[in-house]
Amino acid sequence: MQLNDSDAITININGCREDIPEDPQKNCAGLAIVDLLKEVNSNIGVLIEPRKMITVGAGLGSSGACASAAVYGLNKLLNLNFGMDQMIEIASRGEIASGSVAHADNVAGAMLGGFVIVKSYQPVEVIRIGVPEIPIVIGVMKKTQRTTRSLIPTSMALDVVKEQLALCSRVVHAIMTGDIEELGRVISKDFISEPVRSRSIPGYSTIKKKLLNGGAYGCNVSGGGLSVFAICDRQGTHDIAEIMKHSFAEQNIDSETIITYASNQGIREIFCE
Amino acid sequence: MQLNDSDAITININGCREDIPEDPQKNCAGLAIVDLLKEVNSNIGVLIEPRKMITVGAGLGSSGACASAAVYGLNKLLNLNFGMDQMIEIASRGEIASGSVAHADNVAGAMLGGFVIVKSYQPVEVIRIGVPEIPIVIGVMKKTQRTTRSLIPTSMALDVVKEQLALCSRVVHAIMTGDIEELGRVISKDFISEPVRSRSIPGYSTIKKKLLNGGAYGCNVSGGGLSVFAICDRQGTHDIAEIMKHSFAEQNIDSETIITYASNQGIREIFCE
Repeated sequence: MQLNDSDAITININGCREDIPEDPQKNCAGLAIVDLLKEVNSNIGVLIEPRKMITVGAGLGSSGACASAAVYGLNKLLNLNFGMDQMIEIASRGEIASGSVAHADNVAGAMLGGFVIVKSYQPVEVIRIGVPEIPIVIGVMKKTQRTTRSLIPTSMALDVVKEQLALCSRVVHAIMTGDIEELGRVISKDFISEPVRSRSIPGYSTIKKKLLNGGAYGCNVSGGGLSVFAICDRQGTHDIAEIMKHSFAEQNIDSETIITYASNQGIREIFCE
Repeated sequence: MQLNDSDAITININGCREDIPEDPQKNCAGLAIVDLLKEVNSNIGVLIEPRKMITVGAGLGSSGACASAAVYGLNKLLNLNFGMDQMIEIASRGEIASGSVAHADNVAGAMLGGFVIVKSYQPVEVIRIGVPEIPIVIGVMKKTQRTTRSLIPTSMALDVVKEQLALCSRVVHAIMTGDIEELGRVISKDFISEPVRSRSIPGYSTIKKKLLNGGAYGCNVSGGGLSVFAICDRQGTHDIAEIMKHSFAEQNIDSETIITYASNQGIREIFCE
């Protein structure tokens, strides 16, 4: 990221470019920068060169991470002294470029690392909880698409709400006690996102069943995109990754498999050549 | 509690009798006993003599506590070896006598103490979390009524669900970190029960405002009944109790004020004369 006197926001994407728009109004990081500059009444020129090392449009939050990085960097370069909550708020508006809605789901996690509860939106306030070691295997369909956020229904029966509240409480409890098996059981259930979003993944229920039978503690759709993630124990990651790969292949889906771990590290500065 | 050869369930209530029905089918403990005896195919006679030391019909969970005690006692006297989850399940059906719905909200807490998340209903599974010291001041309207559970709407807008899920996560986090001030802030908000149930308490919003301005960390309606509870620090309990008493009096409500603490002690046997 660099400041210049061009009066313009310029985005040059490196790495997994795919179809990421470089128009600032259509790019999450770009839109976040537009918003921030408006907020501080500046028309300074900004060049960003995101290096995407992850598949795009897969519901893995890379656009949110990029928006967070843009806001964090600009806060530093312009000496704005924005607090974390304020930076999250601005970055969350960048998400409008990918899903039409401002939301902090991804940017809060990218900023802070760990597990983040968004307490409120106006103003944005969050609680960050440190995570135990959580091995995660992700299967990404190699196909870009906009998020499926708009498909989620707008109301929910109260007896289902009750179940979802119990699930939500259990997630927090499982993370805080470091109980990964319980976490797996809980994240495998969901009444809001999974029923809608899994529809876009051919053979989703079969893939899920194979992963759970193969020893994964839990499995669900990742974010709004077309990825499936599973959590398991450290010893099991390669086996689960194999099952993931084969289950996708059986559905004739061209996929990429990633083995990773939940991270407590939030945003940070790195220096590249 | 005593077994006998009368073939009947007899309930003799001591203490705050008020209008508690002694017909086993209309009494939570009685109905739980009916259910348990049906489950084990027994027609043994049972006498229970509940000693209620708490105002009835106030949403303080005393009928649930009574149902729990009946099931726990009968499990012991008949050597049934039911596990905790199973006892909670049976006792939860006793609640049908007071609110027309089987629910474990009160019985699970009464059985186990602490803070209890009901994970699932079929079968009943719970998570118990130990609570920090939480001073609680309760203002009880001296008037008995059935629970207001049936007034709760049957569906909820998804953007409100999102807020309620955040509140729920924060409650668990606040209890597990022992942050009573945060717990107070969270329990003061609620989109499901409070909007409906507070309508039956004259001047509720004024009472709540006075308690919060007076230093309470949080305040809300207790259960389905006509009580208001506030949490505060240990030093503040008497001041908050005074405010509670006066705020109710200003609304011309005859009330009783109780100072207590959240308890980690669940059900236990005591021996009386």
